[in-house]
Amino acid sequence: MSLRFTIEELSEYVEEIFPQIKDDFEILEISELGSRVRLNVTFKHLRPGNTVSGPSIFYLVDCSAYMAVCANLGKEALAVTTNCSIDFMRKPAGEKDLIAICELLKVGQSLVVADSKVYSDGIEKPVARATITYSIPPKI
Amino acid sequence: MSLRFTIEELSEYVEEIFPQIKDDFEILEISELGSRVRLNVTFKHLRPGNTVSGPSIFYLVDCSAYMAVCANLGKEALAVTTNCSIDFMRKPAGEKDLIAICELLKVGQSLVVADSKVYSDGIEKPVARATITYSIPPKI
Amino acid sequence: MSLRFTIEELSEYVEEIFPQIKDDFEILEISELGSRVRLNVTFKHLRPGNTVSGPSIFYLVDCSAYMAVCANLGKEALAVTTNCSIDFMRKPAGEKDLIAICELLKVGQSLVVADSKVYSDGIEKPVARATITYSIPPKI
Amino acid sequence: MSLRFTIEELSEYVEEIFPQIKDDFEILEISELGSRVRLNVTFKHLRPGNTVSGPSIFYLVDCSAYMAVCANLGKEALAVTTNCSIDFMRKPAGEKDLIAICELLKVGQSLVVADSKVYSDGIEKPVARATITYSIPPKI
Repeated sequence: MSLRFTIEELSEYVEEIFPQIKDDFEILEISELGSRVRLNVTFKHLRPGNTVSGPSIFYLVDCSAYMAVCANLGKEALAVTTNCSIDFMRKPAGEKDLIAICELLKVGQSLVVADSKVYSDGIEKPVARATITYSIPPKI
Repeated sequence: MSLRFTIEELSEYVEEIFPQIKDDFEILEISELGSRVRLNVTFKHLRPGNTVSGPSIFYLVDCSAYMAVCANLGKEALAVTTNCSIDFMRKPAGEKDLIAICELLKVGQSLVVADSKVYSDGIEKPVARATITYSIPPKI
Repeated sequence: MSLRFTIEELSEYVEEIFPQIKDDFEILEISELGSRVRLNVTFKHLRPGNTVSGPSIFYLVDCSAYMAVCANLGKEALAVTTNCSIDFMRKPAGEKDLIAICELLKVGQSLVVADSKVYSDGIEKPVARATITYSIPPKI
Repeated sequence: MSLRFTIEELSEYVEEIFPQIKDDFEILEISELGSRVRLNVTFKHLRPGNTVSGPSIFYLVDCSAYMAVCANLGKEALAVTTNCSIDFMRKPAGEKDLIAICELLKVGQSLVVADSKVYSDGIEKPVARATITYSIPPKI
């Protein structure tokens, strides 16, 4: 399986079809194994206590898994998130970006399973972990 | 256990400490059993395909559970989300608001467990379901 | 959609193909909405502290969802569990059977999502809740 | 943090308090990072299709996390499983034992989070992954 996009092409494609997420993310790496994606943390991502909100962490997790799926399966895949379980383990620092490292655990005919660990940039222990399942509709 | 807030007081309190979420939500109901909360769906909540994005649904689920916890345990509780599992079951309509109905399943000394079902306003079958766990730090 | 089995037929069918579970379960109810199943709690289901073990609760959850899926989709469905999230909320009594009430939330072409709540027989508040996803392989 | 048990001591302790699981498991490794545990697969762990049942996989996941927690926190910890999310990704071979590799992701004052990957002995790709949360009651 070879990649369907370069980082530049994938960034452009996603911003084209999904303008709402523009400027939020930077794709750092894509490969057959997964992806690495940065969330550019700004005021809108914070919650009280100078930390990043849970929904912003979920947003990054979902995005990192989507980037990994898209890079490997291409535009046609129309993958739909069906399930996510997420554990919030440590409080992220509000003044640091978040980095998600996503690993594809299974790329099946109808289901893709990916794990994503989220870090405050430069900090060793993860702030969150998540598993996401995508359903791939059958080709007609 | 009696409620610590009226709907008006809780709305004001949340908007005061958490200005980022202003205008996104309307609290429709709070009780000892849970909460009912509306997400005012606007362009920023959508994703390609004229539907509401997964992170926006998560955002509503988290908010509905927080409202239920806050209404019952008060400001002092400092509840922190530790875990969420969410199933996306049907595609929401992009032009309808979302309504979350949150049910408190357990209100323990150190953990609260809540279920939330999310509906496109006026549609019978849920678009998503989620279970959220909050950790309540011990009082000192 | 009408049921593919009576309770008696389904009990016989499951025990025939799956002798390991014989005597563990009693199907109390099956319908288009879900199922109600009893775990006959014996010594092998217990763990220290005179309570039912987590794996035994999972076993009942999985069985209640399988019964609901099988009753509605029939033998041919070959449904495979792909995901389960489970919350253990209260300690079950070791001397009481467990009852699972399973509700089908989505019966789609390729995925079935079911919720199951587990009770100590005769006790009002649930000891556990779970959501299970089944994948239905495409018919050839 | 140093380990509270050797493998031999932990095996003896667990079999003493929990005779139901005798002969099912072999602890292969315990460390500050986690554990590695074997499920000795026999007829009772199988389901139709010559494969290991989902509840048996859950049983191994739960056990591998308990061994890791117990090795690090000691007998007094009284850790209670509060949540598990599990993904079944590939069909295990019925004639092979299962090996769980458990990694402790967070060992906090009140919550422990552990990831467990499950393999058919000798096969590279995991058959399942799971995340388990334990609640540690406060010491009095």
